[in-house]
Amino acid sequence: MNLRWEKLRRKMEEENLDAFLITKEADIFYFSGIWTKGCVLFTNDDRFIITTPMYREESLRGDWEVIIREDTMEDILGKLSQKVKIRRCGFEASNLPFDQYQKISVKFKGQLIPQTSFTQKIRAKKEDSEIEFLTKACKLTLQALDYIKEILQPGISEKQVVGEAIKYLLKEADGFSFFPIVLFGERTSLPHGSCSSRSLKKGDLVLVDIGAKFNGYCADLTRTFIWGENTKWEEIKALVQEIQQKAIQSITPGEKCSQIDGRVREKFEKAGFKDNLLHGTGHGVGLEIHEYPSLTRNSDDVLEEKMIITVEPGVYFPGKGGIRLEEMVLITNEGGKVLP
Amino acid sequence: MNLRWEKLRRKMEEENLDAFLITKEADIFYFSGIWTKGCVLFTNDDRFIITTPMYREESLRGDWEVIIREDTMEDILGKLSQKVKIRRCGFEASNLPFDQYQKISVKFKGQLIPQTSFTQKIRAKKEDSEIEFLTKACKLTLQALDYIKEILQPGISEKQVVGEAIKYLLKEADGFSFFPIVLFGERTSLPHGSCSSRSLKKGDLVLVDIGAKFNGYCADLTRTFIWGENTKWEEIKALVQEIQQKAIQSITPGEKCSQIDGRVREKFEKAGFKDNLLHGTGHGVGLEIHEYPSLTRNSDDVLEEKMIITVEPGVYFPGKGGIRLEEMVLITNEGGKVLP
Repeated sequence: MNLRWEKLRRKMEEENLDAFLITKEADIFYFSGIWTKGCVLFTNDDRFIITTPMYREESLRGDWEVIIREDTMEDILGKLSQKVKIRRCGFEASNLPFDQYQKISVKFKGQLIPQTSFTQKIRAKKEDSEIEFLTKACKLTLQALDYIKEILQPGISEKQVVGEAIKYLLKEADGFSFFPIVLFGERTSLPHGSCSSRSLKKGDLVLVDIGAKFNGYCADLTRTFIWGENTKWEEIKALVQEIQQKAIQSITPGEKCSQIDGRVREKFEKAGFKDNLLHGTGHGVGLEIHEYPSLTRNSDDVLEEKMIITVEPGVYFPGKGGIRLEEMVLITNEGGKVLP
Repeated sequence: MNLRWEKLRRKMEEENLDAFLITKEADIFYFSGIWTKGCVLFTNDDRFIITTPMYREESLRGDWEVIIREDTMEDILGKLSQKVKIRRCGFEASNLPFDQYQKISVKFKGQLIPQTSFTQKIRAKKEDSEIEFLTKACKLTLQALDYIKEILQPGISEKQVVGEAIKYLLKEADGFSFFPIVLFGERTSLPHGSCSSRSLKKGDLVLVDIGAKFNGYCADLTRTFIWGENTKWEEIKALVQEIQQKAIQSITPGEKCSQIDGRVREKFEKAGFKDNLLHGTGHGVGLEIHEYPSLTRNSDDVLEEKMIITVEPGVYFPGKGGIRLEEMVLITNEGGKVLP
C-alpha cells in the first residue's frame, strides 16, 4: 500500500472510521495515481473501484478490485458493505449530491458519516513532488503571461487573447487549470467575467487570470496591466501590490487564514476601498484549482507548512474597472515564499 | 413575469409546491436570462437571488430582489423562509451537495422536498430561439471539424490540434461546450481520453469530439476519421454509421429513450460487438452539455417533440482503437431531424 493510502487510513483511524467512500476524481487520482471516474470504497483490508464500462480501460491500471457496474451504484455499494462488514463509513459531504446520498443510505449496511474537508486536509500539505509540479505549472503560467503581453495590440479582442493563450499553454503544459479570464477596460470590474469580443484600446486595463496545468497540478496567477498610461489606475495598482506583498510577508504557519484576510481587508478599508472588495484573499491550489484552505473572512482553516495558496487581493469599481494581483505562495517555516 | 418563470410556476403547482430553490447556474440563466452564481428562491409572489459580492454587478441586472450575503446561505434562507411563509419548497436533489442540504434544512421553515429532473424536464423541450442557437452552435462545430481535417498532417500532436481547434472556435463562437477530445490511433479506445503529445501517423484513427458554444448553448459532435487507408476500420465505421442512421430514422416522439438505446445495442451485439459497447446512445443538449433526457439502458426518460438529443453510437477495442460518430438530432412530429 503506498504512502497516500496510508495517510487516508491513519486519518480514518483518528475519526474512528473503518471505511471511506471517495467520490471525487481528484481524490481518486491523489490516492491511486490513476485518472478515472467512479467511486472508491476504501477499508482497512480492501479497495474497490465501482465504475462504468466507459472507464474500464483506465480503471484496470489501478491497484484495487474493479467493479464495472451494470446495476446502480447504490446496489453495488449495498452488497459490498454487507460483504466486507462496515461499521462506520466516512464520505466527503460537500462532494455527494443529496439524491445520491439518499439512494446509497437506503442500501448501505453500516453508518454513513458525513465529513468536512477530510481528503482536502490530507491533500493540503504538499509532498516534495507536488511542490515541484506546482512550481513547474507556475513557471509555464509566467511564460504564458509574457507571451500574452507580447501579443497585446490595439484592436485585439479578449477572445482572441484567450485563444492564443490556450494554444500557447497546450505546447508544454497539459492544458489549463480553468478557462482563462481575459478582460479589457471597464469589464475588469467583473472578478470572474467571461471573455467577449471587446477589443483593446489605449488606456485600458487588461486583467489576465490564467493557470497552466502540469502533471495534473493547477497553477493560478493574475496580472493586471495598464495598457498605455493612467495615473489613477497606477496608484491603485501600487496599493494592491503593496497590500499583497505585506500579506505574503506576514504569513506564519499556524495562523488562521481569516486573520490574513482580515489584515488585507483592513488595509483596503483604511485606504477608502471598503465597498470595492468583492472576494476573499486566496485559496489552496493543487490537483484542483480551489482547494483547502480558504483565505476568507469566516474561514476556520489554519495555515501549515508545505501548503500552497494563492494571495490575490483585488479592488473593483462597477462599470469602471478592477485590479487584481495573484501570486502562488508556498508556506514554509520562515513564512510565505512566492513561487516559482 | 416572463414565460419561463411561468413554466416553473405551473410545474410547481402540479407538484403542490409553493416555492422552489434553484441552485444551478444554467437554471438561473434559463429562467432569468442572467449569467450569475448563487441561489434563487422562487415563490408564487417573490423572487430572491442570494449571492456573494463577487456576482453583485451581474446579479443586479435581473428582475429579482438581490441579497448580497455576508452571513451564510443557510442563515439567509432561514430568515427568508420565515418572512415569506413557505409550506413546501422543492429543490433539484442532484444539484445540492449533502452538506448544504443539511445546513439549509436546520434553518429552513417549511418542508424541503427533493425533486428529480424538475427544471431539467422544463428545459428539455426547446423553444424556437433555443433551437436556433443550438443549430448555429452545431454549424460552427461543423466548420471547426472541417478546419481540423485541413490541419491534420503527419507529426501533429493531439494537443496541437486541440489548441488550434479552440483558437478557431473562439473566433465566432462564445467558446467550447467542453474541453475538446482529440485522440489518435490506439488512444481512440478511451471514450473520454484527454489529449496527449501523441503525434499522428499514417493509418491512425482520429477521433474528434467537439462542441462550439453559442449564446450559452452547447453543441456536441463526434467524427472518427481514418488517416490513410485501413479496410478493417472502414468496415467498422460503416457499421457504426449504419446503426446510427437507423437509430435516427426510428426516433418517434413518445417513445422511451431506453428503447432506442436497446435497438442500437441489439444491432451491435448481433454484429459481435457486445463487449465493445462502453456507453449509452446519447443525451439531451442545451445550456449544458449533458441534459435530460438520457438515452441509456436503464433510463425512464421519454422523447418529446422539440427535444434536442445526441445520437452517438461507438465501439471500442482496448489498446487498438475505437470509433464513435455523434450527431445532434431535433425530435419532430415526423421523427428525428439531424441538425443543422
